[in-house]
Amino acid sequence: MATIAPEQLIEQLEWRYAVKRFDPDRRIDEATWAALERCLILTPSSYGLQPWRFIVITDPDVKAQLPALSWGQKQPQDCSHMVVLAARKTMDAEYIQRYMQSVVQTRELPPDAMQGYQRVLVSTVEKIDSHLDWNARQVYIALGQLMVGAAMLGVDTCPMEGIDPAGYDRLLGLAETDYTTVVGCAVGYRHPDDAQANAAKVRFSADELITRI
Amino acid sequence: MATIAPEQLIEQLEWRYAVKRFDPDRRIDEATWAALERCLILTPSSYGLQPWRFIVITDPDVKAQLPALSWGQKQPQDCSHMVVLAARKTMDAEYIQRYMQSVVQTRELPPDAMQGYQRVLVSTVEKIDSHLDWNARQVYIALGQLMVGAAMLGVDTCPMEGIDPAGYDRLLGLAETDYTTVVGCAVGYRHPDDAQANAAKVRFSADELITRI
Repeated sequence: MATIAPEQLIEQLEWRYAVKRFDPDRRIDEATWAALERCLILTPSSYGLQPWRFIVITDPDVKAQLPALSWGQKQPQDCSHMVVLAARKTMDAEYIQRYMQSVVQTRELPPDAMQGYQRVLVSTVEKIDSHLDWNARQVYIALGQLMVGAAMLGVDTCPMEGIDPAGYDRLLGLAETDYTTVVGCAVGYRHPDDAQANAAKVRFSADELITRI
Repeated sequence: MATIAPEQLIEQLEWRYAVKRFDPDRRIDEATWAALERCLILTPSSYGLQPWRFIVITDPDVKAQLPALSWGQKQPQDCSHMVVLAARKTMDAEYIQRYMQSVVQTRELPPDAMQGYQRVLVSTVEKIDSHLDWNARQVYIALGQLMVGAAMLGVDTCPMEGIDPAGYDRLLGLAETDYTTVVGCAVGYRHPDDAQANAAKVRFSADELITRI
């Protein structure tokens, strides 16, 4: 186990803030970025279905097109790695079967070991009102996991809902797929002059947010 | 800065799994639990609005009622701290004003410093289709932040969508409030006999989940 002390977790979460201005000259090194991609992949999801795809943009020409699709915000261009978190639009028997096959392969189970569970899951999932909404919620777990993981490594982030999903879908080649842009997260390093870094963190009090029973 | 090495982050994320059976005799100590509550409070949210409330259940009599509201699952009863993550049902000018007041107070700004931004935000938020859906997505960031934070401290979790929100709302006194149960997270320590702990983690490959541009 490679655990840390509670104070260390809190110190990094207090250090984190939504970066307004990234340092365009600083790039995340390969080992650190590889860990953050792995952090995304390891995100838990409902039934383990991973109803997402993550698009990582580092190409300067593509990044230069992002502020126009992001309410003029510059973070997607100036950051080191712009991550677009896309959700699957649907969830059906075919996808669930593909997932169950990966369970069987990874865990070296008999071919039909998951068939009963698979049937139950397909029938459970059919009852969900909006598969896109459900999948999008899972994507926000990945957003949370990425931001905490980055903070632990001393890497800055800015979560970005203020983006044009349809525009991102077209630019990134998602428009004709079963995935759609849900939220972005710019990842990199804060600019030394980002005034926002010094603003006190605003949170309602524990009394307002937490009820103990 | 209290950063960690990339390998340390990944080691703890690989250690994490969705616990099926908690050790009912192990309790999280006060300092560790305080850090996890702080971890919840520090969760980022859209515009910083924190549209959530977290209910922490440790009372044995209340916990004993949870499996019946959780598709028979025992984790909410056996874990150390059962967290119910509730989303605000609405988002309106009054709430936004209260948030802006907390910004003004925390950052010691002139009383009217946020008025322009507040007007823009109210008008932006009015255009959102479903405030509950939007707020619920933010709640999933908190779920992700809690699970990673716990893993870093060597504390186990089990995210739980398979709960009866209306039943939880009634039991926890949320039914008549502007908050509603979205998802649960059992927090505590794995039972030594939880076979699930030894199951290989199943994830689609990086090639399937990540696109680099």
